[in-house]
Amino acid sequence: MSAGVPQRPPGCSSQTLQKSFPILRWLPHYSLPCLKLDLIAGLTVGLTVVPQALAYADVAGLPAQYGLYSSFMGCFVYCLMGTSKDVTLGPTAIMSLLVSFYTFGDPALAVLMTFLSGCIQLAMGLLCLGFLLDFISYPVIKGFTLAVSLTIGFSQIKNLLGLHNIPQQFFLQVYDTFRRIGETRAGDATLGVLSIVALLVLKLMKSHIPKIHRGMPLWLRLCYLTVWLTATGITNILGSFVSSYPVTGSFGRTAVNAQTGVCTPAGGLFTGALVLLSLAYLTPLFFYIPKATLAAVIICAVAPMFDTKVFRTLWKVKKLDLLPFFATFLLCFWEVQYGILAGVIVSGILLLYPVARPQIKVYDQENLVVQPLSGLSFPATEYIRDRLYEVALAASPPRSVVLDCSHLNTIDYTVVAGLNDLQQEFQRKGVSLSFSDLQDPVFRVLLAAKFTGPGSFRIQGEARGKEDQQEADSSSHSSLLPAVNNSPEILAE
Amino acid sequence: MSAGVPQRPPGCSSQTLQKSFPILRWLPHYSLPCLKLDLIAGLTVGLTVVPQALAYADVAGLPAQYGLYSSFMGCFVYCLMGTSKDVTLGPTAIMSLLVSFYTFGDPALAVLMTFLSGCIQLAMGLLCLGFLLDFISYPVIKGFTLAVSLTIGFSQIKNLLGLHNIPQQFFLQVYDTFRRIGETRAGDATLGVLSIVALLVLKLMKSHIPKIHRGMPLWLRLCYLTVWLTATGITNILGSFVSSYPVTGSFGRTAVNAQTGVCTPAGGLFTGALVLLSLAYLTPLFFYIPKATLAAVIICAVAPMFDTKVFRTLWKVKKLDLLPFFATFLLCFWEVQYGILAGVIVSGILLLYPVARPQIKVYDQENLVVQPLSGLSFPATEYIRDRLYEVALAASPPRSVVLDCSHLNTIDYTVVAGLNDLQQEFQRKGVSLSFSDLQDPVFRVLLAAKFTGPGSFRIQGEARGKEDQQEADSSSHSSLLPAVNNSPEILAE
Repeated sequence: MSAGVPQRPPGCSSQTLQKSFPILRWLPHYSLPCLKLDLIAGLTVGLTVVPQALAYADVAGLPAQYGLYSSFMGCFVYCLMGTSKDVTLGPTAIMSLLVSFYTFGDPALAVLMTFLSGCIQLAMGLLCLGFLLDFISYPVIKGFTLAVSLTIGFSQIKNLLGLHNIPQQFFLQVYDTFRRIGETRAGDATLGVLSIVALLVLKLMKSHIPKIHRGMPLWLRLCYLTVWLTATGITNILGSFVSSYPVTGSFGRTAVNAQTGVCTPAGGLFTGALVLLSLAYLTPLFFYIPKATLAAVIICAVAPMFDTKVFRTLWKVKKLDLLPFFATFLLCFWEVQYGILAGVIVSGILLLYPVARPQIKVYDQENLVVQPLSGLSFPATEYIRDRLYEVALAASPPRSVVLDCSHLNTIDYTVVAGLNDLQQEFQRKGVSLSFSDLQDPVFRVLLAAKFTGPGSFRIQGEARGKEDQQEADSSSHSSLLPAVNNSPEILAE
Repeated sequence: MSAGVPQRPPGCSSQTLQKSFPILRWLPHYSLPCLKLDLIAGLTVGLTVVPQALAYADVAGLPAQYGLYSSFMGCFVYCLMGTSKDVTLGPTAIMSLLVSFYTFGDPALAVLMTFLSGCIQLAMGLLCLGFLLDFISYPVIKGFTLAVSLTIGFSQIKNLLGLHNIPQQFFLQVYDTFRRIGETRAGDATLGVLSIVALLVLKLMKSHIPKIHRGMPLWLRLCYLTVWLTATGITNILGSFVSSYPVTGSFGRTAVNAQTGVCTPAGGLFTGALVLLSLAYLTPLFFYIPKATLAAVIICAVAPMFDTKVFRTLWKVKKLDLLPFFATFLLCFWEVQYGILAGVIVSGILLLYPVARPQIKVYDQENLVVQPLSGLSFPATEYIRDRLYEVALAASPPRSVVLDCSHLNTIDYTVVAGLNDLQQEFQRKGVSLSFSDLQDPVFRVLLAAKFTGPGSFRIQGEARGKEDQQEADSSSHSSLLPAVNNSPEILAE
């Protein structure tokens, strides 16, 4: 069954109750077959979440029961407010690692962190700041996931081998684990390896269940970082009252939910109930769970996140995207937040570079035709001035230029002012700077700026020469304005 | 005489000595007529800078002679390293105001600030960070200039009226000046007003000198904020050894220099000599300069910066640009750096908004043709997915889509991954997502990503229908690839 593309966070664009509480959309049509599917999926997810929650609590440096405290509130809240039937909220390996950095094993700090992060998430949702996540590119997410899965996975090796007093810091941990590998306790190691084998066998059995589709949509991968849907914020705020540590969307369990064929977010009710039952009757037994077994659960949970194919893919598809990937990946071993910040900054520079330095094609014909291959915004003003100066005014003798604006769909005042200055410079050198293929919004801005030097606007096609004389795109302007005296009284002092 | 377009800071692109020391370019051809022009211009600028420097020192809260200490080093350094014959470095009204915020009237702090700002400017120049200035848009500069000219101009009213103990903060200053206007000292006020009248008469006389051109190029206005050319950095570092406070390019004196017909940066030598002579012989007289006269000099110097026409221009040309303008203008009254920061953030949002939310045109034909009007980068991924889902997959029955890529000249991996997921979603719904008008780089990226679903690429023109069947732009791809099975093994897990 397809997971579907989730809808954007509703708070901003809609005022209706139905959009705030999506349960109102599906509950009136709820049926018995749906209940059956939701029951199976909910219990399956529940059986996954209980051992995972116990194990993740260890990653967060908290007693095992805190994992379960964190696992039921999301199920109930998401049933009311969730827009996608598949997504499950709860403790995750990555969030647990992040929690461990700040709470130093103190449950009170973890619960405070849950409340505060809930408030921030809710505020971000209500202030429509979810769009900020759009600026975290896929290579950044991949670099982050890869580094964090390695950190989490390796942090469990010590538990698997029964080693004690290994430092937290990744590189020290690697060094100390290998240095003291001789101290491995045979019992722990055997139990750990057997648990991994058992989990792999179960996984192999699972892979015989026919998959509905091979590719997981991008948004599922975004579960790691997803803080929109106000639902997560409310889950964390309410969760803080039942001693939860911060939760978010779980990729692994969301995939289990989708593959088991969940029908509505009501599946979460059964997951939540199972967690509550475990809490009621199993808590006294948690003391006896071997750490090596929990380590095996965590290693098997994070192993699929260790996807090294992404190197090859980025190399083949877009080598430049390896920069934010590596910036994130490497710095995440120092501090994960620095890793993400570095990745966002590097992708931001890659994003802004073509804005500040747009590609330009120059056709040498009767006049020079200069064509920016993308839009022109204010950071490109000085650059485009320099380029036009270089190709036309610094030439001997100076040459007239037609600026082909076919790829410009908007223009700001800084660019207009820069071009106006340059047009005057052209006139002083006895040559002209004119414009062709203007789209409506750009044409209107230039008209408003009284940008009407002699022959400022050219019939489209006149510019590029013979090869596309027939072209007559209805979306761009081909008016030849009457030649009037240059009157830059607005732009010039 | 045209001021010419200054060349980009040379340090980055060139290694030659000539580019580091532009004097080597013009000195070998230096002639006697040039010397005459430079002498006249240099002395004219010198006669402007001496009274201005004395007055600006007061704005900076420093003794009058510090203005002159700051006025000669720039002349000599710029003669060696300057790339534009017109630009003059020295104390400016805005820089003096900024200095006053941080030095609290202590010359030692001002000199330390000169050294440190020189180091920062030099480092920025050597690290090629001058491009950061491209992100300060024209509305931000205008808002900043307007607010600062108002602040500086009003700060002199108290001196003009002979009022004492007026607070520094702008709003308190306005309140206190009006409250205590009855305490005006007749002598100061008369001298101040007469000085203003005298300066206005001189200015009126000057306006009879024929102007060479009406509009000042944008770069001249950028003098206020200009910190590139390593020349300013070296001037400040060396200036700190002769008790200078921080200097930068002066717009007013650069205009005087250009209008007097300076021939080479050697004009600065005469300006510098005149300043040194004033320091040698006039310092004992500074004590007797009336504050009201200096106030008149400052008010006349900043008055041309108070250009309110910019409101009307921005309103007519690009209303959205009023946002960074007002953000800068209003916050500059709080702290100038917050004003500039706010302006840069607001223009940054205006810049990134169309990157994250590109305009999209939808043509409803046999298939739906969806055409983004600008490039697609990673922040637009979720948006374009949502829009395609909305127009095609949420329709009943779902519809096939042709994505017209004529305005895409590059594409990153996040967009490719998002489109790949979406194409699979289309296939599951039994419809297709294909691409037309692909430019070379985009085509190569999609090929590298094995983006070869059935009919992924369409003959250009097929998409848009009849109106531009003849169009055959050589720069885009029109290959119809053989239909192969969708093999998203790289992109999908």
